[in-house]
Amino acid sequence: MKVLAILYNGFKAAKAEPRLLGTVENELGLRAYLESQGHEYIVTSSKEGPDSDFQKHIADTDILITTPFHPGYLTKELMAKAKNLKVCVTAGVGSDHVDLNAAVERKIQVLEVSGSNVVSVAEQVMMSILLLVRNFVPAHEQAISGNWQVSDIARNAFDLEGKVVGTLGAGRIGYRVLQRLVPFNTKELLYFDYKGLPKEAEQAVGARRVEDLKEFVSQCDVVTVNAPLHEGTKGLINKDLLQHFKPGAWLVNTARGAICNADDVAAAVKSGQLRGYAGDVWNVQPAPADHPWRSMRNPLGGGNGMTPHYSGTTLDAQTRYAEGTKQILQNYFEGKPQDPGNVIVGVGEWLPDQKCLEVLMIRCW
Amino acid sequence: MKVLAILYNGFKAAKAEPRLLGTVENELGLRAYLESQGHEYIVTSSKEGPDSDFQKHIADTDILITTPFHPGYLTKELMAKAKNLKVCVTAGVGSDHVDLNAAVERKIQVLEVSGSNVVSVAEQVMMSILLLVRNFVPAHEQAISGNWQVSDIARNAFDLEGKVVGTLGAGRIGYRVLQRLVPFNTKELLYFDYKGLPKEAEQAVGARRVEDLKEFVSQCDVVTVNAPLHEGTKGLINKDLLQHFKPGAWLVNTARGAICNADDVAAAVKSGQLRGYAGDVWNVQPAPADHPWRSMRNPLGGGNGMTPHYSGTTLDAQTRYAEGTKQILQNYFEGKPQDPGNVIVGVGEWLPDQKCLEVLMIRCW
Repeated sequence: MKVLAILYNGFKAAKAEPRLLGTVENELGLRAYLESQGHEYIVTSSKEGPDSDFQKHIADTDILITTPFHPGYLTKELMAKAKNLKVCVTAGVGSDHVDLNAAVERKIQVLEVSGSNVVSVAEQVMMSILLLVRNFVPAHEQAISGNWQVSDIARNAFDLEGKVVGTLGAGRIGYRVLQRLVPFNTKELLYFDYKGLPKEAEQAVGARRVEDLKEFVSQCDVVTVNAPLHEGTKGLINKDLLQHFKPGAWLVNTARGAICNADDVAAAVKSGQLRGYAGDVWNVQPAPADHPWRSMRNPLGGGNGMTPHYSGTTLDAQTRYAEGTKQILQNYFEGKPQDPGNVIVGVGEWLPDQKCLEVLMIRCW
Repeated sequence: MKVLAILYNGFKAAKAEPRLLGTVENELGLRAYLESQGHEYIVTSSKEGPDSDFQKHIADTDILITTPFHPGYLTKELMAKAKNLKVCVTAGVGSDHVDLNAAVERKIQVLEVSGSNVVSVAEQVMMSILLLVRNFVPAHEQAISGNWQVSDIARNAFDLEGKVVGTLGAGRIGYRVLQRLVPFNTKELLYFDYKGLPKEAEQAVGARRVEDLKEFVSQCDVVTVNAPLHEGTKGLINKDLLQHFKPGAWLVNTARGAICNADDVAAAVKSGQLRGYAGDVWNVQPAPADHPWRSMRNPLGGGNGMTPHYSGTTLDAQTRYAEGTKQILQNYFEGKPQDPGNVIVGVGEWLPDQKCLEVLMIRCW
């Protein structure tokens, strides 16, 4: 079989650090295994446009491996050209770069390594909340630039204790965020989700469900987005919804960039309506150099906690998703069943309990 | 009586933000109260050298108010000139800028607002650990500078999950850090302290005491310093002790800068022996523009999480320590007893159970 992997370039870093498995250079550690089984293995970072390796090779590829960090966008049109494609594996979590409806139609399985980086992302959320609320970035900029003016930092620095924190989505990642928030003595923990958590799960973290989205955001000092991207969440956080946020609230989004309207969020930070925005996901990746989320600042000079998309690709996470990808391939080659938690689209069907993608948010809490 | 407060300048920020109580401009919100009681109230930031307001006014001051953020260093020599001084109040936590032995000798009380910012500092520790382990600073620098090279970040980014984290000092702050670490699924939580925590406290966070300091640091992936500064901790983390750290460990110090040898720590970061160092306390404050902790970087370009000393002076903390300072003054003027938790030095005596300052670390966990 022909296996095609779209990964990011690691350059020198990947040569020096073999644990950077998710790079073109280190090939998810799969070459020896795949070749020993007689398969062809193509690895590339070239993914945009008709002359890219991605579009060139997809025509006769049997198995496609992609990641959310440098996503190979598998559109309906591209899928139509992929005559041999049987399986798409996401080395990581989040398969919104694949047209899932088209995959169902064409009987292409979509699998991901669902447990591989939910903790990594939950940790990134905790870090992002703390650094926004505590106004870290302007403070660090003073430290490295030789300045010392505590009042300029302190005037916009707060404690997380006593604040209301809410997660939009209480699935595998959102629930882990709630768990990690428990000891911080927040005033309240809230969640918004299309259905409620099981009672015991809710009680274990002391979280309260708010069923109306506008009401939910209006009660939160901090909103963290932990939902998948689909038609129901695309552009959900826009100018209209932002007007219902508490003035000066903080927003963290490590889920998918397109859940937020980029210009509306940037404008809200610049005006101070949002005190800050942090996250590592962007509506286009790599983000262009002039993306408004790179330069936005609140009126007091802080409130930008952005990074490139890396939270789910720590060295610890890379080990897990490389191993998980190999396991998925092995199961496929040997005709063994896949871990149901890893199946996004089965052969020609959504999983029985998957009426909509939102189920993904909840089933593995 | 004459009350002298040494605070930091807030400039424009303090004029715009009245909650910046700990500034020269906003005077801890005490002027109306003190003047209504017939007291004189001098507030200044000028604290260095014989011509400073501090040294000029100390001669006939009755009550001195200082903070750890812009410390007025009350040496033995200065105390000898302070003929009227009866009470020193630290608006915050940590009175190491006062010569406590001399205070005992001269029957000068030393009081602080002990609960005012322990949570603020514990949160700063959590933020600092996460941003070092997850390699945030180089990632954010890419985002704001227009770059996108995930491998350069990921090659030195890890999850906190599965790591061994130890606190040097398990007192009011250190214990709160342990509490907040519990849901992160660390491999192990360790603590070093001059005596053990009560059994129930130890079990509540699942922490294990290591009695030998070298053994303690050698087992930790992350070391966080939460001990007071005194003769036993000054320069404790130096070249010699650093050799016993795990290669590539992370070190967070939000306690007092002088617990670490500044040059030794900077050299360890630069060589990669430490993967990173973060904290907001410096051996001299304000830190000079050429302090080595401002510019140090590990060989991969990250590992510096420094900020000016602000963690205990968030707006939430300022409210608490301003109110606490007023309460201490009221108690004093009205002859009421002080909250024992706030007393560092009583009239001419260490508190009965305070054989050494380390007791402060433990008594209020």
